[in-house]
Amino acid sequence: MARVVTPRSDDFPRWFQDVLAKAEVADNGPVRGTMVIRPTGYAIWERMQSEMDDRIKAAGAENAYFPLFIPESYLRREAQHVEGFSPELAVVTHGGGKELAEPVVVRPTSETVIGEYMAKWVSSHRDLPLLLNQWANVVRWELRPRLLLRTTEFLWQEGHTAHATEDDARRYARRILHDVYEDFMRTVLAMPVVVGRKTARERFAGATNTYTLEGMMGDGKALQMGTSHELGQNFAKAFNIVFSNQDGVQEHAWTTSWGSSTRMLGGLIMCHGDDAGLRVPPRAAATQALVTVVKAGEGVLAAAAQVRDELRAAGVRVALDDRVDTPFGRRAVDAELKGFPVRIEVGPRDLAAGNVVLVRRFDGTKAPVELNAIVKIVVEALARDQQALYDEALARRTSNTVEVKTAEDAVAAALDGKWARVPWSTMGAEGEATANRAGVTVRCLVRPDNTVPDSEDEPGVVAYVARSY
Amino acid sequence: MARVVTPRSDDFPRWFQDVLAKAEVADNGPVRGTMVIRPTGYAIWERMQSEMDDRIKAAGAENAYFPLFIPESYLRREAQHVEGFSPELAVVTHGGGKELAEPVVVRPTSETVIGEYMAKWVSSHRDLPLLLNQWANVVRWELRPRLLLRTTEFLWQEGHTAHATEDDARRYARRILHDVYEDFMRTVLAMPVVVGRKTARERFAGATNTYTLEGMMGDGKALQMGTSHELGQNFAKAFNIVFSNQDGVQEHAWTTSWGSSTRMLGGLIMCHGDDAGLRVPPRAAATQALVTVVKAGEGVLAAAAQVRDELRAAGVRVALDDRVDTPFGRRAVDAELKGFPVRIEVGPRDLAAGNVVLVRRFDGTKAPVELNAIVKIVVEALARDQQALYDEALARRTSNTVEVKTAEDAVAAALDGKWARVPWSTMGAEGEATANRAGVTVRCLVRPDNTVPDSEDEPGVVAYVARSY
Repeated sequence: MARVVTPRSDDFPRWFQDVLAKAEVADNGPVRGTMVIRPTGYAIWERMQSEMDDRIKAAGAENAYFPLFIPESYLRREAQHVEGFSPELAVVTHGGGKELAEPVVVRPTSETVIGEYMAKWVSSHRDLPLLLNQWANVVRWELRPRLLLRTTEFLWQEGHTAHATEDDARRYARRILHDVYEDFMRTVLAMPVVVGRKTARERFAGATNTYTLEGMMGDGKALQMGTSHELGQNFAKAFNIVFSNQDGVQEHAWTTSWGSSTRMLGGLIMCHGDDAGLRVPPRAAATQALVTVVKAGEGVLAAAAQVRDELRAAGVRVALDDRVDTPFGRRAVDAELKGFPVRIEVGPRDLAAGNVVLVRRFDGTKAPVELNAIVKIVVEALARDQQALYDEALARRTSNTVEVKTAEDAVAAALDGKWARVPWSTMGAEGEATANRAGVTVRCLVRPDNTVPDSEDEPGVVAYVARSY
Repeated sequence: MARVVTPRSDDFPRWFQDVLAKAEVADNGPVRGTMVIRPTGYAIWERMQSEMDDRIKAAGAENAYFPLFIPESYLRREAQHVEGFSPELAVVTHGGGKELAEPVVVRPTSETVIGEYMAKWVSSHRDLPLLLNQWANVVRWELRPRLLLRTTEFLWQEGHTAHATEDDARRYARRILHDVYEDFMRTVLAMPVVVGRKTARERFAGATNTYTLEGMMGDGKALQMGTSHELGQNFAKAFNIVFSNQDGVQEHAWTTSWGSSTRMLGGLIMCHGDDAGLRVPPRAAATQALVTVVKAGEGVLAAAAQVRDELRAAGVRVALDDRVDTPFGRRAVDAELKGFPVRIEVGPRDLAAGNVVLVRRFDGTKAPVELNAIVKIVVEALARDQQALYDEALARRTSNTVEVKTAEDAVAAALDGKWARVPWSTMGAEGEATANRAGVTVRCLVRPDNTVPDSEDEPGVVAYVARSY
């Protein structure tokens, strides 16, 4: 079989580009840094949205929508925020054929505009917590864009909440971190993320504390998969989000924000993909089982349709490929590229023996299965391969992570494509600055047992050091 | 009870603004013409999206995502299109701190950028039809913005398809018109829309034919609720969407586009709302039944929770209001404003008699219901009131529509707040121009039996003439 994509071991970035093109996941947009998400990619994103949205709502947040355009003056109200985002802004200067009196920026994130409305809607402690989320596009002008991972425009959800106390805000930021993001990434994306705190240097612009989830890609680099921020009273003071507490005293609220984006789709592909293309975890797959008619023959199409109907009735997301005028080999390569978790091949010869062939994308195994056992076998295979993808990714992370004692060794390990765990007390902000100059970053701080520390000063805190996307 | 909103009969536009504010549906954004969709409004929009998306997928279209930013040059490739949209464009001139070499426009619609990619993806008749849809925000700079109805930024779905023949394109544009839009509006929104063709004057910029669905609002004005366009080969020629047909000859494709937006949310409110606020049809309601604890008392909360659980188990979308520290009267007014189809009031006195109280938002009736019959009664009430809202809107449309013989009478009737049906052969393009000068438009052309004509030259074609939003 002809090579369809560059092997990962030859050139990982090229492999990624090839896979996005050949599997029809995404394409570059006409304006530099923008992207087109094609149906194959968007169907996975829709599954991700659905699973995330359920979890966000279960955490009590409500969806809303705030404007794309933000007055430039809003950004300037929070000093760190404007400093962080100014270099990345897209600015609209003309509207309706006229120059605007005040230029507006295309939202890079929505803390400012949502802060303005929170101030209008909050007056009493009874109005808190105020828990909002939106699904939206945002724009950050990228100097070195990379498809799906760092694009000028991307799709995301951004949560914004206001609370009466610092403690309540902190608990909510961590609830989102664990109950929404970590649970989603582990159970749906089959990714064993490391969950921790960002160092002061890596914090979101305007945050007092940033939590992160870091995934290891197929080349050993780290990808930040999502973040949850405590914003202290910074935005409440900048936008005057004030409430009267139970004693009737006016106080500034404590706010949080948290986001995850289409970058996760890139992470999913770079974590699980192989030299034949995508491997989509069954829970993230829009199509979990592809029933493929090998070639026309007596009763073949009817049998294939029956398999599809039975799988659908069992709750499996299934599609039927009956394009027998396209060569079977080409369709099989396409299905591998797109990463459908299982294929059920229905052809005249097997059918004569009462069988179909089950092909598992996880490991490429093919096995004949009796027609009347196919539903049970598929359901089992989907559950098993969801777990197998997770186990494989965890094994890679484990074998590719080293314990070191010094900042120098951490940087060396990272440059060698590994994740290094190093005591934060020896690394420190100074070691971090040195690492940064070498193109290596502290991805997050954790406790020795990989749980999230309450501060970076806790004894025993460990830094994960790695190269990243 | 204090008056909460301006009565519709006093000032319909003011009533609409009051309802949007008091029911917490939407708010003006900080940049003129933009909007904030609050959780109450967004939850209805999500229901609308879900119902629409199911129908779009059933019609075979796949979701994708194309960039927000479009090179200015793309717009210029189709002469009518650029002429129609130029006055409404928002233009980004600066990105990442620098002036851009070529300004980019914020998409007002995506025919152009999608045309560019269709040209890349289509080469053979086997690639057709290509059926795409996207859920996105678009920007059209509005001189006279009106919340939800005509906003500078709005949310919508836009479908874009390419076909091998004119006939196939026409059939698909009409399939979307009827199977997606009309079915959704009638069965979910409970709105008896009139479905017809636009006149040449009212066509989409770049279309060869535009189909429309027109709803009558509470004040008798018309609102265009959605449109489906045949684009002929205009965009295929402008963007070089070419395929080799079955004989190996190169041909330009035939394209369609079709869209519906958050304006439908405004239409839903202006069609069904009354002087107490929204009336949301049960199938469009995110919360169909609100279980309200009247006040604390022995077993009250437990009974309310049980009613909620039983309704949920029966497939009813239900919420529990147990905020007994907020006066019951205020909560009842709020529930009326937000238009939950039914309320179930659970209080100590009724409960002692084994009852709860069912309040139907449709007509405000209240009746005691035995606790163990509540699920059955609620399910029946939801089905009945869905139909009742439709019947009421249809009765209004019927009684508020007049048959006239001349353009003058049509204009007079429209200025009197009615819809006029007038023979298109007597109205004609000249009568239409006169009507436009009087602030009245031809909403659409239909056959005498209200079906959609194949051309405006069919004998007996009737024009609907009305004022509109």
